[in-house]
Parts: sequence; C-alpha cells; structure tokens
Amino acid sequence: MAKRICLIAGSANPVLAKEISKYLNIPLTPADVKKFNDGESYVHIEKSVRGSDVFVIQPTSPDVNDHMMELLIMLDALKRASAHEITAIIPYYGYSRQDRKAAAREPISAKLIADLLTKAGADRVVTFDLHVDQIQGFFDIPEDNLEALPLIAEYIMEKELKDFVIVAPDVGGTKRARRLAKILDAPLAIIDKRRPSHNECEVMNIIGEVEGKTPIIVDDIIDTAGTITSAAKALMEKGAKEAYICATHALFSGPAYERLADKSVKEVIVTNTIAIPKNKVTEKIKIISVASLLAESIKRIYEGEPMGVLFENMYTKMKKK
Amino acid sequence: MAKRICLIAGSANPVLAKEISKYLNIPLTPADVKKFNDGESYVHIEKSVRGSDVFVIQPTSPDVNDHMMELLIMLDALKRASAHEITAIIPYYGYSRQDRKAAAREPISAKLIADLLTKAGADRVVTFDLHVDQIQGFFDIPEDNLEALPLIAEYIMEKELKDFVIVAPDVGGTKRARRLAKILDAPLAIIDKRRPSHNECEVMNIIGEVEGKTPIIVDDIIDTAGTITSAAKALMEKGAKEAYICATHALFSGPAYERLADKSVKEVIVTNTIAIPKNKVTEKIKIISVASLLAESIKRIYEGEPMGVLFENMYTKMKKK
Amino acid sequence: MAKRICLIAGSANPVLAKEISKYLNIPLTPADVKKFNDGESYVHIEKSVRGSDVFVIQPTSPDVNDHMMELLIMLDALKRASAHEITAIIPYYGYSRQDRKAAAREPISAKLIADLLTKAGADRVVTFDLHVDQIQGFFDIPEDNLEALPLIAEYIMEKELKDFVIVAPDVGGTKRARRLAKILDAPLAIIDKRRPSHNECEVMNIIGEVEGKTPIIVDDIIDTAGTITSAAKALMEKGAKEAYICATHALFSGPAYERLADKSVKEVIVTNTIAIPKNKVTEKIKIISVASLLAESIKRIYEGEPMGVLFENMYTKMKKK
Amino acid sequence: MAKRICLIAGSANPVLAKEISKYLNIPLTPADVKKFNDGESYVHIEKSVRGSDVFVIQPTSPDVNDHMMELLIMLDALKRASAHEITAIIPYYGYSRQDRKAAAREPISAKLIADLLTKAGADRVVTFDLHVDQIQGFFDIPEDNLEALPLIAEYIMEKELKDFVIVAPDVGGTKRARRLAKILDAPLAIIDKRRPSHNECEVMNIIGEVEGKTPIIVDDIIDTAGTITSAAKALMEKGAKEAYICATHALFSGPAYERLADKSVKEVIVTNTIAIPKNKVTEKIKIISVASLLAESIKRIYEGEPMGVLFENMYTKMKKK
Amino acid sequence: MAKRICLIAGSANPVLAKEISKYLNIPLTPADVKKFNDGESYVHIEKSVRGSDVFVIQPTSPDVNDHMMELLIMLDALKRASAHEITAIIPYYGYSRQDRKAAAREPISAKLIADLLTKAGADRVVTFDLHVDQIQGFFDIPEDNLEALPLIAEYIMEKELKDFVIVAPDVGGTKRARRLAKILDAPLAIIDKRRPSHNECEVMNIIGEVEGKTPIIVDDIIDTAGTITSAAKALMEKGAKEAYICATHALFSGPAYERLADKSVKEVIVTNTIAIPKNKVTEKIKIISVASLLAESIKRIYEGEPMGVLFENMYTKMKKK
Amino acid sequence: MAKRICLIAGSANPVLAKEISKYLNIPLTPADVKKFNDGESYVHIEKSVRGSDVFVIQPTSPDVNDHMMELLIMLDALKRASAHEITAIIPYYGYSRQDRKAAAREPISAKLIADLLTKAGADRVVTFDLHVDQIQGFFDIPEDNLEALPLIAEYIMEKELKDFVIVAPDVGGTKRARRLAKILDAPLAIIDKRRPSHNECEVMNIIGEVEGKTPIIVDDIIDTAGTITSAAKALMEKGAKEAYICATHALFSGPAYERLADKSVKEVIVTNTIAIPKNKVTEKIKIISVASLLAESIKRIYEGEPMGVLFENMYTKMKKK
Repeated sequence: MAKRICLIAGSANPVLAKEISKYLNIPLTPADVKKFNDGESYVHIEKSVRGSDVFVIQPTSPDVNDHMMELLIMLDALKRASAHEITAIIPYYGYSRQDRKAAAREPISAKLIADLLTKAGADRVVTFDLHVDQIQGFFDIPEDNLEALPLIAEYIMEKELKDFVIVAPDVGGTKRARRLAKILDAPLAIIDKRRPSHNECEVMNIIGEVEGKTPIIVDDIIDTAGTITSAAKALMEKGAKEAYICATHALFSGPAYERLADKSVKEVIVTNTIAIPKNKVTEKIKIISVASLLAESIKRIYEGEPMGVLFENMYTKMKKK
Repeated sequence: MAKRICLIAGSANPVLAKEISKYLNIPLTPADVKKFNDGESYVHIEKSVRGSDVFVIQPTSPDVNDHMMELLIMLDALKRASAHEITAIIPYYGYSRQDRKAAAREPISAKLIADLLTKAGADRVVTFDLHVDQIQGFFDIPEDNLEALPLIAEYIMEKELKDFVIVAPDVGGTKRARRLAKILDAPLAIIDKRRPSHNECEVMNIIGEVEGKTPIIVDDIIDTAGTITSAAKALMEKGAKEAYICATHALFSGPAYERLADKSVKEVIVTNTIAIPKNKVTEKIKIISVASLLAESIKRIYEGEPMGVLFENMYTKMKKK
Repeated sequence: MAKRICLIAGSANPVLAKEISKYLNIPLTPADVKKFNDGESYVHIEKSVRGSDVFVIQPTSPDVNDHMMELLIMLDALKRASAHEITAIIPYYGYSRQDRKAAAREPISAKLIADLLTKAGADRVVTFDLHVDQIQGFFDIPEDNLEALPLIAEYIMEKELKDFVIVAPDVGGTKRARRLAKILDAPLAIIDKRRPSHNECEVMNIIGEVEGKTPIIVDDIIDTAGTITSAAKALMEKGAKEAYICATHALFSGPAYERLADKSVKEVIVTNTIAIPKNKVTEKIKIISVASLLAESIKRIYEGEPMGVLFENMYTKMKKK
Repeated sequence: MAKRICLIAGSANPVLAKEISKYLNIPLTPADVKKFNDGESYVHIEKSVRGSDVFVIQPTSPDVNDHMMELLIMLDALKRASAHEITAIIPYYGYSRQDRKAAAREPISAKLIADLLTKAGADRVVTFDLHVDQIQGFFDIPEDNLEALPLIAEYIMEKELKDFVIVAPDVGGTKRARRLAKILDAPLAIIDKRRPSHNECEVMNIIGEVEGKTPIIVDDIIDTAGTITSAAKALMEKGAKEAYICATHALFSGPAYERLADKSVKEVIVTNTIAIPKNKVTEKIKIISVASLLAESIKRIYEGEPMGVLFENMYTKMKKK
Repeated sequence: MAKRICLIAGSANPVLAKEISKYLNIPLTPADVKKFNDGESYVHIEKSVRGSDVFVIQPTSPDVNDHMMELLIMLDALKRASAHEITAIIPYYGYSRQDRKAAAREPISAKLIADLLTKAGADRVVTFDLHVDQIQGFFDIPEDNLEALPLIAEYIMEKELKDFVIVAPDVGGTKRARRLAKILDAPLAIIDKRRPSHNECEVMNIIGEVEGKTPIIVDDIIDTAGTITSAAKALMEKGAKEAYICATHALFSGPAYERLADKSVKEVIVTNTIAIPKNKVTEKIKIISVASLLAESIKRIYEGEPMGVLFENMYTKMKKK
Repeated sequence: MAKRICLIAGSANPVLAKEISKYLNIPLTPADVKKFNDGESYVHIEKSVRGSDVFVIQPTSPDVNDHMMELLIMLDALKRASAHEITAIIPYYGYSRQDRKAAAREPISAKLIADLLTKAGADRVVTFDLHVDQIQGFFDIPEDNLEALPLIAEYIMEKELKDFVIVAPDVGGTKRARRLAKILDAPLAIIDKRRPSHNECEVMNIIGEVEGKTPIIVDDIIDTAGTITSAAKALMEKGAKEAYICATHALFSGPAYERLADKSVKEVIVTNTIAIPKNKVTEKIKIISVASLLAESIKRIYEGEPMGVLFENMYTKMKKK
C-alpha cells in the first residue's frame, strides 16, 4: 500500500470519475488531456504521483480508438512519473467482442488490447461485465471483473413488478439471463433464432412461457439495439406485454435510439459505464450509476481488503427488501 | 522453411504419431522418453534436429500432469538442440475447461498452460476443437485449431441414416450442434436443463422435435459421460430412438465406460486425439482417426501453404457423396 | 527469406500501397479493413499469408489514433495467421514529436508506439525522415529510416534555379538544411527567433545572406504551417524572393492550406508519405512519390540485399545531371 | 512489507506446512486443492489474499509432475487474486539433478522449472540444499537456498559419538562432506570409485583412515539409496563400524527402504523436506524437522530482516555445547 | 516505501557517495568492490539489504567499461540479495553520445546500456543533464534526469559579473545556452562553424554581440575540450574578454587539461558528477558539488515526495539574491 | 539458413578469427572496432549483413570488461543492421568462475553475462570447455559448448610418452582428469589438499601412483598458475618427473609466466581460445589452435548439420593412430 492514492480521469467519462471522486472524498488529480491539431492525443499529469497508487478511469467506449490511445498514453506518463502501482479502471472494455478468431486470419483484438495495456504500464485492470469471462485470461496481471447485474436487479426489485419473466435474447445469453432470474427468483425464457428447414425464413422460437407476462430482456451490451428490440417485438407478437430491456453497457450506435423508441419497449435500463450524451437521454432510458461500486472497489484495492464482501453486502441488502 | 522436417512422439499417443509418420512417409525421430524411479520425466532426442522444423506430437490427456511436464521438457530439449522452429501438436489440450475464473481466487489454468508452452520453447501450437475458441487468444504465438467435426460428419453421412436429429446436450453446446446440423442438413434439438420453479427438481427440457427420430448427440469432450448419457436417456423417454453419441475427445474418466454401455446409446463416435486403451474399446465405440488431417496440416505448416484448403477439400468430398 | 512476399495496405494511404504494388508487380493481398458501427476497427486478411514475408503499408497519419489501432490489429492478425516475418512500413510515424519529456509527468509517446508495434507483432519497421534520429533507438527490432531529402533535392535540381539559398526555419532545423545545402551545393541561412531583451518582442533574426535570393525553406513536417510560412514572410521582408517550401511529411492540419496560399510562398514541395485528399491539392503543391524508393527497399529487405546502394544510386544519378 | 502475511499448503507436504503455521502462530489460508476425475489439478484459494505477502509451501517431491503442476496452478491463482508478493517455498526442488546437458539434445529441466515458476507468478523462491549451487543462477528472481546441514550436525553432536569420520560417498560429494567435517571438527574420508586398469572391475577406493571408526556418510539426496549403501558396505569391509547415513532429502524411491535396512547402516538421518509416509518410518530412520528454520526464514522475508543471523545463531548454539 | 534505505558506492566516484551519505546522515552500506588478477570485477555487499530501497551511486565515467560492468554486477548482487527497489544513480551516463545511428550499421549504445541496466536489475535510474533528452525514452522504467544548470547559474550569479554574454559553442547547443541566458537574464550568442563556399576553410561565425563582453560558454560535456577552447579563442579574436567555460560533466580526456590552460580561458566551471583526480585540479577549475541535489532527490524518491519542488526552491533562492 | 554467412572479429582475438576465416575461405566482414579518447568502445560494421547469418568471434578474455562491452555493442549493431541470426562465438567465457553465490549477497555474474548477451541480440552462443556445465543452463537460447580436450589428447598422443599419469590438481577437477585419462587410456591421480588435523598445515595428499611417472596435470583455466604449479612441485617431491601441464584457457594473469618457468614444469599445453601476446610465448608453451574445430562448427551451424559428428571424427582419427 502506497502512502497516497490518486484518481485520474481520461476524457471518455469524466462525469463518472467525478462521482467516484466525490464518493471517496479524494479530489481528481488534475491532468491536461487533449488532442492536438493533427489529432494526436496528449496527456500531462499536473501534480506529482510519485510513489502513489494511481487509478485511471477511462472506459474505451466510442470513439474507441481515441480513448484507447489516450489511455495507453496516460499509462505511459504515469509509469514514467514514478507511480507506485497503476490500476486501469475500464468500465467498458472496447473490442471485447473481438475475442476469438471466428474466421481464419482474423485478429483477436481483445487479447491485443490486454497486451497493449500491460506493455504501456498497467499493473492491474478493473472492468464491468466482460463480454466473455475468458477475457480475464487474456491478462497476466490481476483483473477484477465487477458485476453490474446486482445493481440492475436491485432497481427492478424496487419496481415491484408482477408476473414477469427474464428473457435471453439469444441462446448465447442464457447464462446471464439465468443468473438474473435466480437473483430475482423469476422464470426464464430463451429466444432461439433458427430456420425450420433449409429454405424457410429464420423464425424467433421462444422457449418458455411469456404470454401475458412482462418480459425483462437482459444483455451485456446494447450496440445498435437490433437483437434486443427484435426480441421485444417477437415477444409482443407472442402475447407478452411491453418489455423492459436491460444491459450493462449502453453503446447506442447507429440506429439504436430510434429502435429503442419502439412501442414494444417500455423501459431501457443501463448503467453509466459508458457516458451517454445528456441530450440523448429520453424518459424511457434509466441510467444506474456504478460509481459507488467502483469507488468501493478502488478503496478495497488500495487497502488490500477483500472485494467479494462488496457483492455479499449488495445481496443481503436486496434480500432484506 | 528449414531444410529438414522432424516428427517426434511423446508418450501420450505414440500410435497416432506413427500413423502420421506413415502418412507423411517421414520416420519418427528416435527419442528416449521415460520416467525415472523418482517419477521425474526424462527426454533424450537421439538424432540431430539442428536447423530442422520439428513437430512434437503429444496430447495432454490423462495422466495430464505427466504428459504436460514431459511435453515441456521435450520443448526445452529441442530448443537447446537448435531446432529451427518447434510446433507442439496437442490434439487434446488438457486443462481447456479451466478457461475462466468461475469463482474468485481460481486459476485460469488453460492460460497458464499456454504461457508455459511458449516459455518452454513452442513457436507454434496445433490443437483440435478447443473447448472454447477464446483459448486461441491465450497464445501470443500462432495457434491452429483444427476441426474434427467434418470427419465425424463424413462418417455419419456414410451411414445413410434416415430421420435423424442433431442434439446439443446443453444450451452451451448449441453452436457446435448447429454447425453439425448445417453440415448434415439436419434439424436441431437442444436440451435445456432447468428447474420449473424454486422448489422443484431440475428437468430435462427438450427444445425441438425428437419423437420417433434418431438423435445424434454431439459434444466436444466426453469425460465421465454423465451429461451425454443423461441426454440419451431423456431423449429415449421422450420417444426418441437409441442415440448416436459423438465427440472429438474421448477422455472416458471414472464411470464413463459403464455409462456408455447403457441401452439408450447405440454408438459412440470419437476420434483418436486421445489414445484409448485397446482393451477398453468395445464394439459400440467407433474411433475415427485424425492422423491424415494432422499429417496434411504438418505438411502445410512446413511448406508455408494455406491450411483452409484442407477443409474445403473435405467439404467438397462430402458434397459429392 | 520466405518462399513468398505479401503486400498489405491499411486504410491510411491505399494509393501509395497501390503504387508500390505496381512497381514491384506484386498484387496487394486482399484484406477487409473497416470500422464497425461502434467505431471499432476490424481487419480480415482474405488470403493465406502462412510462411510469407509480409509488408504492411500504413502511415500513422491523421486520424492518427484510428490508423494506429488499425495497424496494431493488422499486425496481430498477421502474426496469428503465421506470417514468417512482418515489416511495418510506416512512411509517416505519428507521435514522433512526443519524443521526450519536455516537462515532468509527460509521456514519451513515440517510445510507447515503438513498444506497442513490437508487442503487436512487428518484426521490423521502415520509416521516412523520423523527426529525431533517436527514435530508431526506441526500437529493439531493426528499424530502417529512409530519407526523402535526395528525392526533393533531385526535383529542385531539375528546376535549374539560379541564386538560391537553403533556409532552416529555426535553429533546430540547421542540420537538415545544411544537409540539403550540401547535396545542392548551395549557401545556407538560419532563422533564429529571439527576444533582443527582456521586454521586447520576439524577432526573426536571419543568419546568412538572403536578399535578392530565392529561399528554399526546408523542414521535416508541415503541420499547421505556422513556422514555415512565418519564415517565408520574414524572408520576403528582408528582400528575398518568393520562397520554395519543402518537407517530407504533409500533415496540413488546421489553417495549413490557408497559410500556404500566402503570396510569399511560391511552391510547396512534399512527398506522399501522407495521403493528401485530391480536392485539397492546388497547383502550388507538388507531391513527389516515395513509392519507388519504398518498393526498392521492400525488395532489398525481402532478398537480404544492402539498402545503402539505393541511396548511392540516387546520388550518382543526381551528379550526372 | 504488505499489511498481511498468508501461508498456503499444497498437497505435497501438509504436515510440514502445519508445523510452520503453528510455529509462526499464523493459520494456514484454506484452499481447495484436488484432482478431478480426469486427473487435472484444481486449486481454489478460499479466503482473500488481496495485498498480502503469500508463502506457498510445496516440495516438488514425488509424484513430482503432479506436485509441480499443482504448484504452478496455485501461483497462477494467487497472482490473479492480487497477492502482493508470492514466495514459493520449495523445500525439495524436483528435477534438480537434471541441471546440465550430460549429452547432446538433453533438456536442462532444472532451468526449465525455474522459468516456469517465474512465469506462473513466483516473485521469490526458497529451497533447501540445492543439488548444485548453480541452480540459484537459473533464477532471475531472488532465491534463498537454506542449509539443513547445521541441523543434522547439531543432531549428531548431541549423540556425543567417539572416533567418527565424515565420508563423502563419491568424489563429487567432497565439498559437502568437508563442510560437515569442519562444523563437527572431524576427519574426512572420500570414496573414489574407479577401475584400476582398462579391463578390471570398478573398485571402491577409500581415501582417508576409516578402520575401527564410525563413519558418517553424508549426501544431499537419498533416491534409491544405491550409492550410499554400497559405501556403507565398502566401509565395513575396510574395517569401519556400522555407518550413520545422513542426507537432507529423503526421496526413498524403488528399493531404498530395503537397502537402508542393511546391517551396515546403523541410522538414517534425514529431514522432512519431503513427506515420508508414516507407515514407512522405521526405528532406524530419524527425521529432523526443518519447520522452525523455514518459519524463521518466512518471518525474516516478510519483515525484511537479514537471514544470515539465523545460521549464525545456530552455530553459536552448537559451539556452546 | 521500504522500511529501510541503503546507499552503496561503486568505485567510480566514492567521494561523491560519501558527500551524499553525510548530507543524508545515512552510512554507506559496506561493499567489497574490486578487480581480480584477471581483470574481472567482483562485488560483495557486506550487510543485508533485504527489503530495503537501495541507491547505488556510480557514474559510468572512464574507465567506462569497467565502471559499467561493475555497476551491472552490483545490480545483479542487489537483486539476488532481495533489495526491495533498486535505483541506479548514474550522475554521468557513459555512451550517451552514441544515441543514434549516424551511419548504417552503427550501434545505438546509449539504448543498449538502458536495456542492460534494466535487465541487470535496476528499477529506476537517476541521471544529470543527459546529452539528449530522448535518452529518457530509451528506458521503460522511471528515469529522473536532474539538472545541474541552476547550480552553475547560482555560482555565476554570485560572481556579480558585468556585461557578460552566454555563448553556445555550436548550433546544437543553442537550447542549453538559451536556457542559461534566461535564468541569468543575459544576452545570447551562438557560434556557427561553416564553410563560406565549397573550397574555403571552415570559419567560426559568431551570431550575436560579443565585443568587449565576458563570454560564458556553456556545454554539457567537456571531453577533449577541443570545441569549447576553439570557441574561447575565436571569441577573443572577435574582441571578447577571457571566457568562462562551464559544463556539467568533466570528462577531460586526452589533451583537455592542456587546452583548458590556454589564456583565452579564465575559469572552468564543472560539477563533480565525474570524479576529477585531485592532482589534476588547478586553480582555474571550479568544481561545484551535486551531492546535496542528489541527496535531496534520493530522499524524495524514497519517501514518494515530488521532486520538482527541489528546483523551484533553487530558483526562488536565486531570485532573492 | 540465410543466403549468406558473415564472420566478424572483435578486438580480443583477431588472429584466431583470421585462422577461421582462412579455413572456411570466407573473408572477415570489415568492421571499425575501436575505443574513443574517453574510453568508450565503438563499432561500425562496414559491409551489409542484412539477412545474413553472422558469427562474431570474441573471447571475453582480459581486458574482460572492455571485450565484453565491445561484444555487446557489436551484437547491438548487428541486430539493428538486420542480421538474420547472430551467433556469438565466445571461445573463452569471462566471468565463468562467478557461477554461484559462494556467500550471501554475491552476484552470479556468469548468469548476468548470459542475460546481457541475449538482451543485446545474440541468438546463439558457442563456447569452449565452460568452467561448469551448468552455465549452459544460464541461457535460454541454444548454447553449444565445444570441447578442446580431444585436441589436447591428440597432441599428447603424438608425443608417444611412456609411463605417464593424468593428474587432477584438486578434487573438483577429477571429472575432467578422468575424462582425459579415459581418452588416453592412462591411470589417474588426484591431488587432495587438506589439513590432517585442526592446527596443522595444509598438505598435498596425492591419491594414486605417481612415483617415477610423467604427470600430465590437466585443468580448464590457467589463471595465475598457482594451483597447477604447486601441484607440479608436489608431484616432483613425491618422485614424479617433470610435469606436462595442460589447460584449454590460458589466462596467464599476474605471476603466471614466472611460475610456469619453474623447473618442475616441462611443457605447458594450451589452446588459442585466448590470444597470448607473441613476446610472451616461450619454448615451453605449446599453443594448439581451435580454429579448425570452430570453423567446422560454424559451418555446421550455418548449414543445420549435426555437430556431434565433429567429435566422433576426431576420436576415430585418434584411435587410428
């Protein structure tokens, strides 16, 4: 444990960084983070971090390449400035879906990123709900992968919904949905897209009871929102009510806002791992803050205290309700 | 491309190594591979490999720790003996199911193994049907993950079965089953184990039509054969016929042989990535050799020729039938 | 020397890549290089590079972060696709001016980039006129830093200008200017910006004879063109004629095009290390291609032939004129 | 110095670990260490080690490959669980006799092991009486090689034997024997096996006076006990009394127990660096515990205090007697 | 921060080490540092450094290769002796002028040295006035490059000279001279060596007013003193007074002492980064000690306090005068 | 195998390099290898080595630190000059006797050197008769340790001596002496220095028959020649004739020449792994060249042919005699 702790924000989500700073009552270390005329990122840490444990807060959300390079450059500056231990807090881990070679001669970008972060100077990484758990294995340094699902579950619980069903929007999401169903003690449905026979169209096959129920569709990332909104529509067609859609990471690319506006979607529950522009937030979108969870993690990492407790507390709190 | 190519067999599957050697018409480089009285593995390469491209054939099948250490020691010996490039051919990649932290403070052994192999001297690795694709990303060296599914498909095709259905024994295996179904142009069923409500027993929920059909249950590994034989029984209860069970890797641990003897299982189709003791092979067990596929891969790696062609040829051959 | 040579183009300067391909009569290896909706770069090499010596052509020019990440991802894909040796041809090396800590707690981004390229899979790097020579030392892999000055000198020579003087726009550029003056056997002038005394304005102090002469101002990079166009104006005020401005790398950021349009500038001579949008090229801008020089270098690297010859030939050719 | 210290036992010598734990009054951190049905080792650290200095106690004694892989996997789990510093306490260092290439194309397994331990996460290693001192040089991390000889000397001293001689069972062991002779202020004899001339048998040539004396034969490892019991017999033939045999590491492989039962052997003095099965311990075998020595070392490493003191104290204590 | 701090001196500048030790009131850790008959360097640290933060003081001044190897060997010994963090204090960084490839097939020795130091065990490096700033980028570990210029400025200020001018002995030294001129609020002159035309001799072109003034010529290193004494002579020819010559590093090789004895040189102001033999120090040579500056830096590194303050204090002190 | 092979000589043993060059009929690649005024080593390879397999010939004999740094700098230059594979031929490996920690807080310099060579760019190392075999294990790159003993044996055989005995000058040298005795089919004697009892002088105890015989004392290194000449004297006192002294490496430090002049020494047989100044070579000193052996090894390494053959041939040749 170093004598001091420092928090530094990149440009990707300064609001989240400020929330964490406030929670911990530790001011953000001032840093000049900018882009030059020619597009090169530049970082200047403005106060000494010598001998400190430093936590850099930077999701690698869009513009992912700018945020990634900026993060790598910050790590380099901190390492050269004699920080004692550097933790990269990456609430959203960009390139996490390029996690394997789906075809010959593809990169495995999620692994590459892990290597680059380590090379640049990260001693430890903290993320939220990685797209696949194996990404932890891409690192040789300690990697704490936090979970936002309990926060989402807590929020849903407070709604005191009746007769709802947790839905995985595709077979790959079964594990996540099953986990949420277990926390909320709710039934589960899975949407299985398939072609009945060779020359027929793909159909949305729904496994589990949904008629007359309120579906809560859960995913890790909402990118263009195609899969999840198709799921909401298909559920409605099968007699389900308007759907709650929840996910940890709100990428909201391309047609996402438009699609989420569809009447089949009642509410979109996401977290602030990625900064959502204020003018884009509609009434339908509920943003749950992960700041306190991250702040507590930072405290525990700094003090060498167990992290699991954090989640146990959360579940206890939920159970009491 | 080195001037010469060498093949070396560890003690885990010498028969497969011999088949490959015969196919390529390249003799196995003699090596003294043994265990001392105190249990230490020992390796002595008996002919010069200086400047050669060397291919070591060693699945890390049970006894996995012995086979692993032996492989690492062989790599060390080859590196120090000035081999030009060393490829570890690991038809079965032990520890592949310890691929993520399912709980706090667990290892990620599949990543550790990748690091150990690289450190010991492997320049390249060839595997078969890795448990999860992300394991390729655990390596920073080239990793060719070959596929045995087409060989299995080819064998099934030759049977000219009528009215069969491909079955995934759990939701996690959907992707693999769908892939086999596509190759064979067959329908798909998924077994979803779940509890209807909180205090009821887990039931085998079968998604897809199986009644009166011949199920072909597919998995990557048969370990104790618990999951796959339960699936066969459940299918039979739902009116399906006796099942064909197929998998790439035949671990056959503990009660496996006993379970596979059950009447619900008609045939067990596996490959020889793992050596099966001769006295354990019953009539029911069909072993498909991956030797020619591996031999062709070795040839292509040595000569710097594309590998994809290999599989294209296989599909073309299948289509012609 | 591998059996085959492959050329691959990133998205930063495909025209240059095509010129090189044409010169060498080697087709570009097709690759799908794109950005997803969420801004992540994606690369898929579409033909086998197994066992080949691969040359990736990608200046890390604006948008520098996108081009950098794309390049790193390409290197990862090529490494995993079993390329024999990978050379990153980076005609313009972005972040080259962040080459030292000008203040405490700054990064040394040019070193970071060198480390990232190596980590991602580059076995060798080729650049043009690095901002400072020490950047070669940032690499532990071979780094060939080519020189465009002879190409520029050759072009100027063909103009058969009378009574011209080579000008360094600041003291730091003296070495480069002196080198050009030596090739062209011309006199040299240096512009030294300084304050006569504490509370006076900075003045442009010109060292050397310029009155009535045609100045040829030389720099390595034209970014916003501030320094170089101020120099042209100051020279004109001291009685010099309209200036020729020359530089290897045409960043042309922000107000650059506007400034270069000034009447004190007669011609702007740059190379195509950075792609200049066609619609931005005015009559005043002369672009010299480095394609043949790069192509010859690639050939020599592939064949293990000396590179120096290349430049000797160039000088001989010049002398003959 | 971390805030906390943790002790963890592998499965190779849990009794020694418990002794250390008791001495230090620090409970062993609970860990689930087991083998699956398919033979894969599995480790789950059951309490947080975040920020702690962790000491893993695991000799890599037979079954050496199982114990080695288990140790590597524990290191991986501890590293990923954010331990501050990890020390591998390896009282017996398996593969230590494969420390050089005795023939072309042999491995140097003792070096390989050093590399694997470091790669897996060890920050420091503690051993006992390494087979050759050069093994310390196989590591780039700090390696403390403790000495059990003083413990053995102390035990012999307490016996108050008269007229004894220290014997090296072969020329290679001269240094060790000389060291013991010096501590005990006793004469030395060396056994030199050689062939008098080309076609004669190997004879045991004894250098030094042994007739009528009590020989104390000293070695580092007793493996199959061949060398050391032949020595005892040869000494008896030359008129010496029954021999005391002492060694640090009691491998006791193959025919060892049988051989040690010979009447030429009076007592076998070993340490508990390797766990000896209770049912194998006869009256003749005296086991000296290294627990307190290891415990004191752990304390000094944790607190950053000199280790040499430890041995100085031991000698002072001996001298006083 | 470790529990203890240790200072160790190599053989290159023991006097400086003693001064630092005295300032900090921390005794030097005794070490046996010597050369064997065959010229091999040998180091034995004579007191425990286990768990300490160790600062090794060793400029790599002539005999540079002996001092370099000795330093590397000390780092190895300290690393193996379990030092917590090792800082190499290298007041003069040998090979710093071999910082780039001036010709094809040259080494970049200054980078090589950085790699060797890191490999041998340095966790951090402290230097003085590196020949070029980019050398900091040759390191991946923290590198603090201290500045002696303020110390020199302070000394000059105390002289209360009238009508003096700071002179850069060549164009490359402009930046350094400008910096000193700014601290002392003095005018600047630059000496530009060049040939007026092709077949004329090189002349010393002096830019700036020097007639009747006292020149203070500033450089980083005085090697054979050729450049700087030529400058002094040239200035005198142009009507300047006797020159003050100042530089951080006093290599004083070959004819240096002789040249500095010239009447054009009034005083030679250097620091003790390099030990100057007592018998070589004439009245003309003023040696300023960097000991207090280094001592304060060591304290700040050990305690994790900012270093910048150090220099701010110095400037404040100067301003007050 | 690269297209070309290059030989380069450092300054430590240019005569040996020329012999090798002549044997192979490959000219030495010209290189400017020198020391600057300030003692820094400098290397400039004067012809292209791009894509070549380069063999650098440099024993790290006295002045060991100069030769070592020069070698490291050559490796750096060759690596940056795009050599394909770099082999460091180090006939005498300096620091080889600092191979273990004989006391706490000593370095293991022989390991450090191995790490430095690898870091600087060596891909492979060739040595002669390493002081201990374990040094091979200090490398992670291929290390071929050649043997000069057969050359020495061959020379002795040609003398057709009668009634000679091979002598190990201390117990540690028994293995080497036994090996020579075996090649020459001769008896063996060992000199064991010891103190009969606590307060008596050390005496030379000779094990084996020497009276009236011609002793051939064999060692690996002759440093100050103390041990080996004491042995010769002791043997003479015991009635042996004048001794032949043989060793691979002729360091000849301090009083060596004087000592070897003693009448008890008939002839000193060494090799040219270390360059002996011409004026120091007396009639008594016989220097056997290792050039042809090294040349053949270089050829085999370059062509990827087995090396063992080399020695088999040598033995066959000897047997025929």
